Amino acid sequence: VPEAPHVSPVRGMRDLLPAECELRDWAIGRILDTYRRFGFARIETPVLEHLALLTGGQGGENEKLIFKVLKRGEKLDLAAARSEDDLSEEGLRFDLTVPLARYYAHNQGALPQPFKAIQIGPVFRAERPQKGRFRQFTQCDIDVLGEAGEAAEIELILATTEALAALGLRGFTVRVNDRRFLREFARHCSVDDEARQDEFFIVLDKLDKAGVEGVLKELGERGFGAATAGRLADLLTGPLAQQVEGQPLFADALATVRRVREVVGPLLGERARVEFDPTLVRGMGYYTGPIFEIGMDGAPGSIAGGGRYDRMLGRLLGREVPACGFSIGFERVVGLLLERGVRAPKAGTRFALLHEPGVDSLQRVLAEAAARRAAVEGNSVAVFARRKKLGKQLDELEQAGFDCVLTLPEGNGPPEEQWLGGGRA
Amino acid sequence: VPEAPHVSPVRGMRDLLPAECELRDWAIGRILDTYRRFGFARIETPVLEHLALLTGGQGGENEKLIFKVLKRGEKLDLAAARSEDDLSEEGLRFDLTVPLARYYAHNQGALPQPFKAIQIGPVFRAERPQKGRFRQFTQCDIDVLGEAGEAAEIELILATTEALAALGLRGFTVRVNDRRFLREFARHCSVDDEARQDEFFIVLDKLDKAGVEGVLKELGERGFGAATAGRLADLLTGPLAQQVEGQPLFADALATVRRVREVVGPLLGERARVEFDPTLVRGMGYYTGPIFEIGMDGAPGSIAGGGRYDRMLGRLLGREVPACGFSIGFERVVGLLLERGVRAPKAGTRFALLHEPGVDSLQRVLAEAAARRAAVEGNSVAVFARRKKLGKQLDELEQAGFDCVLTLPEGNGPPEEQWLGGGRA
Repeated sequence: VPEAPHVSPVRGMRDLLPAECELRDWAIGRILDTYRRFGFARIETPVLEHLALLTGGQGGENEKLIFKVLKRGEKLDLAAARSEDDLSEEGLRFDLTVPLARYYAHNQGALPQPFKAIQIGPVFRAERPQKGRFRQFTQCDIDVLGEAGEAAEIELILATTEALAALGLRGFTVRVNDRRFLREFARHCSVDDEARQDEFFIVLDKLDKAGVEGVLKELGERGFGAATAGRLADLLTGPLAQQVEGQPLFADALATVRRVREVVGPLLGERARVEFDPTLVRGMGYYTGPIFEIGMDGAPGSIAGGGRYDRMLGRLLGREVPACGFSIGFERVVGLLLERGVRAPKAGTRFALLHEPGVDSLQRVLAEAAARRAAVEGNSVAVFARRKKLGKQLDELEQAGFDCVLTLPEGNGPPEEQWLGGGRA
Repeated sequence: VPEAPHVSPVRGMRDLLPAECELRDWAIGRILDTYRRFGFARIETPVLEHLALLTGGQGGENEKLIFKVLKRGEKLDLAAARSEDDLSEEGLRFDLTVPLARYYAHNQGALPQPFKAIQIGPVFRAERPQKGRFRQFTQCDIDVLGEAGEAAEIELILATTEALAALGLRGFTVRVNDRRFLREFARHCSVDDEARQDEFFIVLDKLDKAGVEGVLKELGERGFGAATAGRLADLLTGPLAQQVEGQPLFADALATVRRVREVVGPLLGERARVEFDPTLVRGMGYYTGPIFEIGMDGAPGSIAGGGRYDRMLGRLLGREVPACGFSIGFERVVGLLLERGVRAPKAGTRFALLHEPGVDSLQRVLAEAAARRAAVEGNSVAVFARRKKLGKQLDELEQAGFDCVLTLPEGNGPPEEQWLGGGRA
């Protein structure tokens, strides 16, 4: 039978099956628990926001990927509509940081100072669908609002690595850089214009893939002059991080990076290495100071990232409020857990209680189920009608993760237990 | 300072402050835990669905309240657009039942039979904003798909009342009716046309507010004839439920209601009363058999509701699959918990560790915080810079729910503890 139309999820989005949901709920519980022990508090904002907020220039490329919501009723004048702006004034959020800034501006009177926020929820981007990328995905953020010192950065790194470790993941590298250093570095290489600097960073970002020659070649193609190439080539004669750190010129711009490394390194111990990465850029335009990413041995790319964005809240508040945040790439992390066969730990035994409708008294069946649930915390009992093909039913129950099948004998005796698969014999 | 534009949430939606988020997370945890112990498994579907699915006639009035998403790129031809249908093909879900039917049709091969699903997530309705009603709100559903017998209804009632009781709520009344009885009852009152029956039910639904005379009057105004009024008046001479149950005429249509009450009553014990309510209607058009609502002493209206909808899945699957579901009015329940001053139980002690930047070594501060967290499971430690106005800061920390403030003395001694408010002396 062909599937009826519209039975698939909408393009680029997906349904979550029970096993993945269970793993995600477990992972979110572990992350939330860790963040709460660091004194962060969860908040929530609506999924919809004013388009004027979302398109305020803070979201970079993401602003082009907004799902816009059609105006309703009298507000929608189709005949007079000249552009999309006439049709829509609200959209689905593309991240949790822009809504957080709005939230803080709107609710600041009711929030402690500084404010340490957790946000976990779906965000939406109309990207071209591709493997492992979805148009709805979960973000998992912590932010410290109202704290200017590097204590914020340090706590975010400690909390995020501890949350990832609570999922059983190991072998982290925290890469640290600073937007102020990047600007200084660009000026040193004779790139003074801010927009040109951003382009310079994009090319520099490719150093580990393209190599020194590749970077110098692309800079030439993009019209960066000989002075830029010369200065950069000088610094690239050895490992860039060492070259840069050796230059007194960059000492001021790297002071925070150095302090963060000094404090965080010993506190992290075996959990993670901390490295200065002068080519770390991160996409979002709103960062103003230290930026970070967390990588993991055996997993290319990054599994978390963040940084300081001291000027975003000022745009909404009319006064500056320093801010710093860290986001776990939750879908990436769940993908790694699934790859490694990690399953949510079971709290107790999963029983399936089979009854024969019309023969077994439903009251006896349900009373037995209630007793089994009450006997051990974490036990679960699902009641099912016994099917004629019992063998097939047992296979399905094992497949669905049940540990033990219970059937009631005639009379009043206790149920017979049949343990499935690798369960208790 | 006036608020910048777009700093408020969008119309009809709201931000959740930390205390409410904590209560909601606790409540969801308790509900999920209860439902899992009954053998239900959580699933998730995307927030967006095909409009063709959402407007398939199953959603009743809710179909008029859909937030539609603007088409993108080449698909959006503004010049050629004649109606909303040309502008949009996806929308935000208005409930979790219609998406569940799609989910089951799409994923049935990977799901156990019967399938017992939990869904908790946001739904969206563009209703006129009013007190306690929001355009984004959380629903909390369980459904049994593929089980035709009343065991499904009975388990849903047991699980839902147990979940509500796990939140500390008491004094439930489960009201039960049956759509088949309602049709029979309408025919007995000479209303044979299905659409007219639906109108008859709407009026009947008002019996407890309008009284017998009010109902008879409105029926007359709506053009129902003397035969209808006469038959109904006869039945309304005593309490309607008793009158109806005494009529052998309705015995078949009420057989399931009777069996459900017989089995469920003793199993519920003190937790809830079960009553037959012949005027219970419930809005959704898709119900086909027993319907329920749960009320609570001292709280008008209902806090949960559901019923059997055996024909919805057939429309998508091409074969009939019996289905039955129960939904907790989560926003209503959270409102009741807040009214009663219920707070999420604390797992441990909430410490605020104050440090003097530049004086206290950050490394010592953070090591102390880590040690306190590790000492007792559930303890949380938030690190804050000490402010000059310490009295004000302590007030704020108490307000924010902290139990104890820690400050480090000079030298290497343990931190000084200052317990706040009603905390340990």
